[in-house]
Amino acid sequence: MTRTVFYVSDGTGITAETIGNTILTQFGDVQFETYRLPFVDSVERAREVAQQVRDQGGEDRTRPILISSIIDPAINAALADSGALMLDVFAPFMTPLEEELGTSRSPRVGRAHGMIDYSRYEARIDATNYALSHDDGININYKDAEVILVGVSRSGKTPTCLYLALHFGIRAGNYPLTEEDLDKQELPKHLVAFRERLFGLTIDPQRLAQVRETRRPGSRYATLEQCRQEVAAAEKLIRAERLPMVSTTHSSIEEIGSKILKTLNIHRHMF
Amino acid sequence: MTRTVFYVSDGTGITAETIGNTILTQFGDVQFETYRLPFVDSVERAREVAQQVRDQGGEDRTRPILISSIIDPAINAALADSGALMLDVFAPFMTPLEEELGTSRSPRVGRAHGMIDYSRYEARIDATNYALSHDDGININYKDAEVILVGVSRSGKTPTCLYLALHFGIRAGNYPLTEEDLDKQELPKHLVAFRERLFGLTIDPQRLAQVRETRRPGSRYATLEQCRQEVAAAEKLIRAERLPMVSTTHSSIEEIGSKILKTLNIHRHMF
Repeated sequence: MTRTVFYVSDGTGITAETIGNTILTQFGDVQFETYRLPFVDSVERAREVAQQVRDQGGEDRTRPILISSIIDPAINAALADSGALMLDVFAPFMTPLEEELGTSRSPRVGRAHGMIDYSRYEARIDATNYALSHDDGININYKDAEVILVGVSRSGKTPTCLYLALHFGIRAGNYPLTEEDLDKQELPKHLVAFRERLFGLTIDPQRLAQVRETRRPGSRYATLEQCRQEVAAAEKLIRAERLPMVSTTHSSIEEIGSKILKTLNIHRHMF
Repeated sequence: MTRTVFYVSDGTGITAETIGNTILTQFGDVQFETYRLPFVDSVERAREVAQQVRDQGGEDRTRPILISSIIDPAINAALADSGALMLDVFAPFMTPLEEELGTSRSPRVGRAHGMIDYSRYEARIDATNYALSHDDGININYKDAEVILVGVSRSGKTPTCLYLALHFGIRAGNYPLTEEDLDKQELPKHLVAFRERLFGLTIDPQRLAQVRETRRPGSRYATLEQCRQEVAAAEKLIRAERLPMVSTTHSSIEEIGSKILKTLNIHRHMF
């Protein structure tokens, strides 16, 4: 049987959905149908949502599950009228923290993904511009880079750079190792000066061939043979240069990004 | 007094930090120093972390707060040896859900930001490539776009497109309204066919002038006068065309993205 789950938030709903996804994964035997309902920031809007959830329950003939990341108790009370199983993401932590800190919380609308200040916003926008202008070896002046990813074409460098920029405000550039670099088994000179910031990405050749085939069907570039050669040469070079390296084959962009920050010892808060 | 907080995770630590940020925001009077410790995926590693946390507590002369998004009870038990105030992000939801679903959970490592399958990964990579190739009016064939953002230069279109691509796998292009478009007060023809997918971004002219000034100091492009004229003309055009519009001035990229999806009625799960 499929159970309906609503992620309800006064903001974007990202926090509720993130937590909810992990929780629901623990119940692999159950099918879930999930809906995200963002910007439920008034009691009136909460009443409408409660009605929608109640109607869904009638249709399902079983009560929906409502995962709320709303802080305001009045809004949560209105949602509870839906008859859903209410799971409040933040409530369980408030009492222990109040006791620990010896102070009451001062209720504020949760702003996990809301704007906090311009300087943080600017940092992520600037970093995004940096990633775009230093993508794929376009601009190889890496003086201001905090991270420089190296690897063969389509090993996952661009999305990783954009992710690091958008979520951590990190200036990340990337350089695709050329056939010349691979033949010579040498890092290009303009990279050597920034050795401490280099990080290698690799990928399973079969997977790479699939990715390239989508991009340029039937090309030599996409053959398994070509991918095998390039990946072997790139890994050899990266190892010889003793650069850290991670395979993108079985990792999400978030995992790759997190590993890079950890390895290069970059401490940065998320936006 | 500053309290030390550790976000500990068996994965990226993103979930723990996201929840933690919101919780800590509720205690505006307290200063927090936060650390993210990702990839704590074994009891051994947990013991090392527990030692680190214990040492920090000794230095602080008060116990740290440890926010854990780890599912494995053995790892959490090892962390609890640190003497920190333990806040387990997922634990509070497990019992109510087991009761509701009439089944026990089958423990799995939480994979909120882990790789799930290639098709999802490909969707976000493809969408990122789409955003890059349809950025800033480079390629104005919007046939395959799901969202097309329009607005003046530096109104926030590019980061929003990249965010929608990376996190929702949405193919989003963007078109910067030109002086000609603004003078004519007409949408260019290649956009009109895709009216249902258009979304306007606007921005406060003073803010825009600041952003542009960083980009091209002293230019006419960055003058308040120029920004005022462009924004007024763009808003007039967007309203006349009855397109949805949002101001990026006080919103985070996540909020803007979420509003666009809601308004255009696009239902998509996050990656």
